[in-house]
Amino acid sequence: MGLWFTEKYEGEGMELQATGLTFKVKSAVKKETPYQELLLLETEDWGKMLVLDGAVQTTERDEFIYHEMIVHPAGFTFTREIERVLVVGGGDGGTVREVLKHNPKVVDLVEIDRDVVEFSKRELPSISSGLSDERVNLIFGDGREFVKDKDSLYDLIIVDCSDPIGPSKVLYEEEFYRDVLKALKPDGIFVTQSESPFAQRNVHIKVVKELSKVFKIIRPYLAFIPTYPSGMWSFTMASNKLDPLGVPPSSLGKLYREFVEKNGELKYYNPEIHYGAFAIPNFVYREE
Amino acid sequence: MGLWFTEKYEGEGMELQATGLTFKVKSAVKKETPYQELLLLETEDWGKMLVLDGAVQTTERDEFIYHEMIVHPAGFTFTREIERVLVVGGGDGGTVREVLKHNPKVVDLVEIDRDVVEFSKRELPSISSGLSDERVNLIFGDGREFVKDKDSLYDLIIVDCSDPIGPSKVLYEEEFYRDVLKALKPDGIFVTQSESPFAQRNVHIKVVKELSKVFKIIRPYLAFIPTYPSGMWSFTMASNKLDPLGVPPSSLGKLYREFVEKNGELKYYNPEIHYGAFAIPNFVYREE
Repeated sequence: MGLWFTEKYEGEGMELQATGLTFKVKSAVKKETPYQELLLLETEDWGKMLVLDGAVQTTERDEFIYHEMIVHPAGFTFTREIERVLVVGGGDGGTVREVLKHNPKVVDLVEIDRDVVEFSKRELPSISSGLSDERVNLIFGDGREFVKDKDSLYDLIIVDCSDPIGPSKVLYEEEFYRDVLKALKPDGIFVTQSESPFAQRNVHIKVVKELSKVFKIIRPYLAFIPTYPSGMWSFTMASNKLDPLGVPPSSLGKLYREFVEKNGELKYYNPEIHYGAFAIPNFVYREE
Repeated sequence: MGLWFTEKYEGEGMELQATGLTFKVKSAVKKETPYQELLLLETEDWGKMLVLDGAVQTTERDEFIYHEMIVHPAGFTFTREIERVLVVGGGDGGTVREVLKHNPKVVDLVEIDRDVVEFSKRELPSISSGLSDERVNLIFGDGREFVKDKDSLYDLIIVDCSDPIGPSKVLYEEEFYRDVLKALKPDGIFVTQSESPFAQRNVHIKVVKELSKVFKIIRPYLAFIPTYPSGMWSFTMASNKLDPLGVPPSSLGKLYREFVEKNGELKYYNPEIHYGAFAIPNFVYREE
């Protein structure tokens, strides 16, 4: 259905690539940072695209989906003020931009690679705009180390990291999640991106399993992200007190209308999505 | 995030293909039918793949998503017996296989291209199995013409067709939907695949608009289909009487448990998906 093929005859077999997504690149800038290879592409239909170590992180055309969905399901689970937020990773600034719509007093962003922040500030202003907000502290360092000595400090901690290879690997482990729990207020919420339940199902299941050892309420949820593998993406919310599915529809509706009055309409998230995103197809957790 | 790139330098620009889905092809069979070019690929990780006119129709690995989701949200909206079902298109048989799980007395399948049915019966037995069930009538002809003289005959009509180019074009138009309404019983349900709200948003919107001229209740819904463009796929359900969101969760839960006892667990659809799939991101219907 509208897919195209590239056929490459390689020795014994044929490699076929089907996607429907084509990126016509107008220009490219490449930079080696101390941590990774950073590539910025200017494309015809997808705007600018940020690529780290060969993996698409974000494009101007579909970034709203990832950034709204890593923030708002948790943001709308609070029925009180959100005072202090920690974002681990997320150097492009998109997550911070959405967090600021919930009126926090302070947002700490801990990004290991200063070049990602500087590159995004210069090249992706529509995504990185929030990074220069006065409520935002930019901390360049290791998020794993940063949380270790924090105690009941944050309402909301968000891990906006890359795949569990290289520096992000420790952000997928039980020990980190224990420190996150300690760094959260008792009724705080943790959110992490948790890979594709279709394309990286084992990693997704591991995240949910490790979180279950540490938190009482674990809620994985889904969003359509066209530029990520398979298009089926997941996030997982965890808390000892607050449950996104426990928010009554009437109070969510009221909160959402007030939010829209102040911030304008969102492009992906809405109250129906808030509940619907938590429906998970059977195959994801089925024993095999 | 796990995506790979193919870089082709073509004159002035670079074309970049990002997807995360690779199909290693072990063998390929091609056939020109009177209607289209039919291609069957045997792949390493996705099983067999059926391609019509260069567009992926189905793969053994992810076909369950499309076929469960074109059938069960409507199937579980009925609280009475489903007696007679019409499937327009769907020559691979996957839709019929799922329809049969709802115990209909008769299923009429109208497929324009006899070769698709014969090919699927031979090459895709796990998908086409239902086509040899004695309750199924195979009719080779034009679905558009077939419905014209039918009157209050069907409980459920499903359009399982390709993109609106070539023979499928008429299946996206108001005139066809009027004949469908006449062919349905007064409390019947119509379902059609309705393209990607991300990659073919205009077509999706047109389907919903044309259906709204004919039916009282219009419910578009979504599913993750990795091998279709963008991975974000839609179906639209339409009826003058029955509303999938009007089914009480307790009665759906009971129906679903009875269904699973008889047919085994499904791989995608479940009662949470039944309601959650109808949550549509804001960008889809936003004025621009």
